[in-house]
Amino acid sequence: MAELRRDPITGRWVIISTDRARRPSDFLQERVRIKGEANCPFCGGNEAKTPPEILAFGRQNGQRDTPGWTVRVVPNKFPALGIEGELGREGDGLFDRMNGIGAHEVIIETPDHASTLATMPEKSIEQVLWAYRDRMMDLKNDRRFRYVLLFKNHGEAAGASLEHTHSQLIALPIVPKQVREEVESGRRYFEDKERCIFCDMIKQEMEDGSRMILENEHFLALAPYAPRFPFETWILPRQHSSAFENHTHPAYENLARILKESLERLDAVLTCPAYNYVVHTSPIGEEVNDHFHWHIEMMPKLTKVAGFEWGTGFYINPTPPEEAARFLREAHVPEAAL
Amino acid sequence: MAELRRDPITGRWVIISTDRARRPSDFLQERVRIKGEANCPFCGGNEAKTPPEILAFGRQNGQRDTPGWTVRVVPNKFPALGIEGELGREGDGLFDRMNGIGAHEVIIETPDHASTLATMPEKSIEQVLWAYRDRMMDLKNDRRFRYVLLFKNHGEAAGASLEHTHSQLIALPIVPKQVREEVESGRRYFEDKERCIFCDMIKQEMEDGSRMILENEHFLALAPYAPRFPFETWILPRQHSSAFENHTHPAYENLARILKESLERLDAVLTCPAYNYVVHTSPIGEEVNDHFHWHIEMMPKLTKVAGFEWGTGFYINPTPPEEAARFLREAHVPEAAL
Repeated sequence: MAELRRDPITGRWVIISTDRARRPSDFLQERVRIKGEANCPFCGGNEAKTPPEILAFGRQNGQRDTPGWTVRVVPNKFPALGIEGELGREGDGLFDRMNGIGAHEVIIETPDHASTLATMPEKSIEQVLWAYRDRMMDLKNDRRFRYVLLFKNHGEAAGASLEHTHSQLIALPIVPKQVREEVESGRRYFEDKERCIFCDMIKQEMEDGSRMILENEHFLALAPYAPRFPFETWILPRQHSSAFENHTHPAYENLARILKESLERLDAVLTCPAYNYVVHTSPIGEEVNDHFHWHIEMMPKLTKVAGFEWGTGFYINPTPPEEAARFLREAHVPEAAL
Repeated sequence: MAELRRDPITGRWVIISTDRARRPSDFLQERVRIKGEANCPFCGGNEAKTPPEILAFGRQNGQRDTPGWTVRVVPNKFPALGIEGELGREGDGLFDRMNGIGAHEVIIETPDHASTLATMPEKSIEQVLWAYRDRMMDLKNDRRFRYVLLFKNHGEAAGASLEHTHSQLIALPIVPKQVREEVESGRRYFEDKERCIFCDMIKQEMEDGSRMILENEHFLALAPYAPRFPFETWILPRQHSSAFENHTHPAYENLARILKESLERLDAVLTCPAYNYVVHTSPIGEEVNDHFHWHIEMMPKLTKVAGFEWGTGFYINPTPPEEAARFLREAHVPEAAL
């Protein structure tokens, strides 16, 4: 029989099919393949094909927008929001609007077209995380912004328009609804119990074990109790931490490792699926708090999402998270490139 | 410059691109084509290929599960939920679960494989609406259920697994999150102002006119102020009505007409796109109220939804609703089949 499960943080109910649970091999295996496009604007040597860089790591003595970098951040060539101008907040009867002010940047994770975040060395992934953090810290100085959204689309099916591995960042003058809901839910729980709901969940998950995927000194990866999507995976800090950007140095090393290992396992079990991930951190100006626990939500793109999911916020997931976690735990991963 | 807009009911902000606004011809035109599959289980004459029917209209004297029907409702052959059993609600620490109890039915809108809801005569669409209503009324007698979700996936890109035109219904022991949010938001607004937020929005939209698409005696179709998707269209009753199932007879005639005309216009402007729609009505047991205004949300499937939309509830829409509404208002629609 199927099961209805409720996510304790968002209050969202999902249907989990437990009968004919779909195993990894049941999903359409649209393997993400790197074709190696000519003239890729993100490749080393093609720096002139992007807008002028905002940040680059690894270049020794070289000039801006020249090769030699390891991670490079550039403005999105087709930004969803513009950086210049006033917010111009205004109402129109029931409606509220403001100008589309924001930053939209691309984090090019490596100059090498053939790499992915799963195949890159841990040290390089750590550099990507530092680039995330540096850009976040910089954009937080802009008083117009309330949130910096970090996300990654990998593979065409997940919305990536260029195949060269990259992440994106959007700085926004508002807090996205789902983040705001999670923060408020955490706040209510804390007011009730003087405990973080995520910390309570982590404790319960570690005791139970059935949905655990990976853990290291600072982080753990688990399949959430009520996942919207098959093989949905969350990465969370083990100890309470309300913001991605506020960890000490060694934590990012451990985050790079668990991110790489989680992606390697998804690649192994699901044959290099398209995926998205998004970083949920605290809104700007409330970074240090007791009630919100920052995390990464990873969503492999395995199923076609049908209509009523859009219109209702209600999901049917054909793979129980306990099954997904078991497959990911037991995945055979080739020797890591360190 | 792009614009940030807030939906007054859900509080959701979306980015509306106003610069390089995408016109209908800019979208990938994956026209939904009826291939005419052999042995379609929904075709007249193939009644034995479905589970035994729950309801059929139009058959004169014939036996159950024989041809001659105009609309036919059958259980989904691969139901997401099972109809038999107890809810078995239980907690597990932080988590809540219940058995996957529910109904999952298919409304076969016509025995004719080549028809679509846009090309069917209005009278036939009205029959479909009566079938929606009859099933809803029947399922509401089951005390285990809290909500009856009516939706339609049209075209493979929108998640339809069979091309023969049909809708689906899922009866649930919970209220879907997005519906619950809309109802609660409406309740808070009513507590404040003693007015329905939807009624206020309709008044403002009718005065403004720029997002209006169609209207008739009982209903109107409009592009919402802060749509998630290009050409998203809502159909609402003009006068306050909290439940789909509680209208008087003539209203369904008008609903059939505006539904047909809205779909015809989407077909004309976007070359027969895949689409989803979902009916948002009041939860079971609170059908008659002053604060929630039932409606249909229609979402043509034109863009690939990328990662951060899933992870944040934050959308980028490349077509301003004023543009979409203008295209739909001015659409040249072939002479209606009445």
